[in-house]
Amino acid sequence: MEFNVWFLGIKSGGKQIIVIDNEDASQLGIHSSDRVEVTYKNKHIIAIANVAAEFPRGTLGIYSEVYDKLQAENGETVTVRPAERPESIAYIREKINGKRLRPKEIEAIIMDVVERHLSDIELASFVTSLYIHGTCIDEVEALTKAMVETGQTVDFDKGPLLDKHSIGGVPGDKTTILVIPIVAAAGFTIPKTSSRAITSPAGTADRVEVLCPVNLSCEEMQKVVKKTNACLAWGGALDLAPADDLLIQVEYPLSIDPLLLPSIMSKKKAIGADYVVVDIPTGRGAKIKTIGEAQSLAQEFIELGKRLDMKIQCAVTFGEQPIGYAIGPALEAWEALSTLMGKGPIDLVNKAASLAGLLFEMMGINDGAQKAKDIIKSGKAEKKLREIIAAQGGNPDVEPEDIETGPETIAVPSKEEGRVQWINNMAMAQIARESGAPKNRGSGVLLNKKLGDKVAEGDIIYTIFSENTQKLNSAEALAKNLNPIGVTGKFGEKMLMGTIPTKKVTLEKPFILER
Amino acid sequence: MEFNVWFLGIKSGGKQIIVIDNEDASQLGIHSSDRVEVTYKNKHIIAIANVAAEFPRGTLGIYSEVYDKLQAENGETVTVRPAERPESIAYIREKINGKRLRPKEIEAIIMDVVERHLSDIELASFVTSLYIHGTCIDEVEALTKAMVETGQTVDFDKGPLLDKHSIGGVPGDKTTILVIPIVAAAGFTIPKTSSRAITSPAGTADRVEVLCPVNLSCEEMQKVVKKTNACLAWGGALDLAPADDLLIQVEYPLSIDPLLLPSIMSKKKAIGADYVVVDIPTGRGAKIKTIGEAQSLAQEFIELGKRLDMKIQCAVTFGEQPIGYAIGPALEAWEALSTLMGKGPIDLVNKAASLAGLLFEMMGINDGAQKAKDIIKSGKAEKKLREIIAAQGGNPDVEPEDIETGPETIAVPSKEEGRVQWINNMAMAQIARESGAPKNRGSGVLLNKKLGDKVAEGDIIYTIFSENTQKLNSAEALAKNLNPIGVTGKFGEKMLMGTIPTKKVTLEKPFILER
Repeated sequence: MEFNVWFLGIKSGGKQIIVIDNEDASQLGIHSSDRVEVTYKNKHIIAIANVAAEFPRGTLGIYSEVYDKLQAENGETVTVRPAERPESIAYIREKINGKRLRPKEIEAIIMDVVERHLSDIELASFVTSLYIHGTCIDEVEALTKAMVETGQTVDFDKGPLLDKHSIGGVPGDKTTILVIPIVAAAGFTIPKTSSRAITSPAGTADRVEVLCPVNLSCEEMQKVVKKTNACLAWGGALDLAPADDLLIQVEYPLSIDPLLLPSIMSKKKAIGADYVVVDIPTGRGAKIKTIGEAQSLAQEFIELGKRLDMKIQCAVTFGEQPIGYAIGPALEAWEALSTLMGKGPIDLVNKAASLAGLLFEMMGINDGAQKAKDIIKSGKAEKKLREIIAAQGGNPDVEPEDIETGPETIAVPSKEEGRVQWINNMAMAQIARESGAPKNRGSGVLLNKKLGDKVAEGDIIYTIFSENTQKLNSAEALAKNLNPIGVTGKFGEKMLMGTIPTKKVTLEKPFILER
Repeated sequence: MEFNVWFLGIKSGGKQIIVIDNEDASQLGIHSSDRVEVTYKNKHIIAIANVAAEFPRGTLGIYSEVYDKLQAENGETVTVRPAERPESIAYIREKINGKRLRPKEIEAIIMDVVERHLSDIELASFVTSLYIHGTCIDEVEALTKAMVETGQTVDFDKGPLLDKHSIGGVPGDKTTILVIPIVAAAGFTIPKTSSRAITSPAGTADRVEVLCPVNLSCEEMQKVVKKTNACLAWGGALDLAPADDLLIQVEYPLSIDPLLLPSIMSKKKAIGADYVVVDIPTGRGAKIKTIGEAQSLAQEFIELGKRLDMKIQCAVTFGEQPIGYAIGPALEAWEALSTLMGKGPIDLVNKAASLAGLLFEMMGINDGAQKAKDIIKSGKAEKKLREIIAAQGGNPDVEPEDIETGPETIAVPSKEEGRVQWINNMAMAQIARESGAPKNRGSGVLLNKKLGDKVAEGDIIYTIFSENTQKLNSAEALAKNLNPIGVTGKFGEKMLMGTIPTKKVTLEKPFILER
């Protein structure tokens, strides 16, 4: 059937979408989400049809992605016909039915994901099936390889390449900003890409961006690494494993994460990592609750690493409270810089030294954690961070006090005396987000007390920072509601931990999808 | 945040959708598919955000559904804020995790389906979870009741009400056009609503529309039933169980059908049916392959009926070949009318008489099938059909030869001699669709031979009808490819039934979703 093009001026963000009237669709024999082939002159594309109930007859509404490919102007004539269903849909159906998929089938699916041949409905059904039926290690391997093959890869012309990754879930975890310069200062190459926050108060890219630009191209990243042996770049612009980014868009509204391993490991493989330390924060309030769970996840990382020619070490770290005291991009950048300058909290120093130390030991160095601490103490790690900041276009002479936080603050006092017995990670993250983080960089929470600390009645237990009064107030109100820090005297003196609200409240999405 | 409205002039077909730029979305802290509350003057609505990569900043693109509710004109200012996630998402997550849902939870989900608060991603994940984990009878009951309660119900002010339903899957099944007038001619009330074809060559509504209008409003339907004790209406315009229609839009691209029972039974309950006969065509090439499967499905229908205060009888019918000889709207209308006039195929007569007979026996009449045959023979069923045609606005004096078919035809001869050993239902349906059915009413297939018939080499085994040469030719080509009728001599003489193509071909969707 022939249609006149009408350019809608909307960019879907990748998907090739056309809009067509109900009646026209029925004449073509297609329904919403069916695929059509659109032909203009000698150009053909496959697009997904949005069937609209009242759209001008004989008109084909096209999104920017379709326009970019066809270059058909308003009013020009194109031919539309129903397209065959991609073969990969048959494989998605097999996964729905609980079958294991073979590598060829997984490749076909991932290829169609990247080429935008699958609709949100098909993608959602696929990730739901992966989540419910699970994935065996062969499938995980095939998914990872297919994600790497359908994306960009970066060659650093150096080797071996080291890398570090955290599965996330603990607020205030700025460890990466320490580990990378420590490792690079020891002469190893460690090109690090990070993500921005999706549902947490800060991702590593958000934190580093307080110090210098992170939005690097592949070439810029290669230059920075050549100069400094390291980088702290945002991975989002690099098109590494784009299938993962597309699948996350569907996983996010469902708060499910069946592709954790392929998602992480495909990005490591795409930049050519040889030795990787994976941090698995563990405990109540972390993604992984028990050491047993952490061990079985670690086994999968190690096995997958073998299949991808990467050496993996997994670190199970204490995840029951925020790392250090600061939560929020600027507060965390300030704390990370201060720590490299010798004035940091013990848990952050120890965590960074342990992870860097594991990498050192993988490279044959004894007593790695001590070597990492020595590098901090010597000032070499600080110097290396400043080199990286300079190479990425920031101010290498930045001092912690130059970093703007707040400016508005509210200090929250304890109503009881005793010791800090628990800190609710999720609640802390939500309060920091309510105050404006990560968008407002200066917003967040600064803890004054941490687990085990003695608290007198009226002592400040944490301080909320915000860039505007309204957000500050709403964060304070949320904090009252969530009561994120528990102070009691002796264990057992207070047995009632809380009451269960009769109505189920889902305040915000858990940040399971942060990488 | 404040936005200027821009009316996109697109109707989504129900969903309340707004389009917003990437950067604006990030400022608001929302992602694609998140819900937002849009406020204009004193009007508030919840809409689903489509995040576009390049959209004018500060502009809120609105679909017609949003415009209809807000009445905000181009350039006017509206306020947008992130909306809380509907509670029902927590229940969908529970189903993803394999939990049984309680009635209250199912009600919340179905309510949010109807109010369009759930995105395609959430709906797809929900139906996939229902399909994988299955539904217990309590869930099926709650789903059915919730679908009824969130839709229109029709009161016919008469009782008891009889009804008939087929789970479908066999081409050429025009039985309903016979059963309804037979039952009504016996003095019972049987207000029948039917669907149009989605993936089959003809639905009952398509067939009846050849004889008279089927697009009745509730009031028109009530009038027709008052006058004739029956109707043959299209259910699509009546808003009975709209949740079902919305869920089908998601099930269709996935070719899964986890809501078969609620879908069928909610529509029966919505029109107040008291006695229902459910036809379960069974056999190779039908939806249900074995009598055992048919029995367990029947048990579920019967149990669900009890819980809804409906008496159900299930008929397991022979489903291994088309019913009668005709496939396609006009051909089938012609065959149905001819059969009521005494010149019909034995299988169609027997099937209609059996189903009508079951209803008669439920009403206390002995030897129901014989009574049904007597009613056909007496001409009363034909007379009743003509009354219904007249009441719905058609020509009551229509003769079979008035019905236009074709006009172009190709007769397909047998290359072998022997007997017809098998007929491939799915292939027949696809050939009929390729010829133009159901859109082109006169298109379709007329069988010349059926199972067990003797065939000489060169005998015509079926004839393809089409309204245009191109479609006729492409149907013929498809027929050559699919070889839908198998003729052999003695069993065993030919053991090779076919070869399996190395590449998996999914030609078209199975018509599992036809109701």
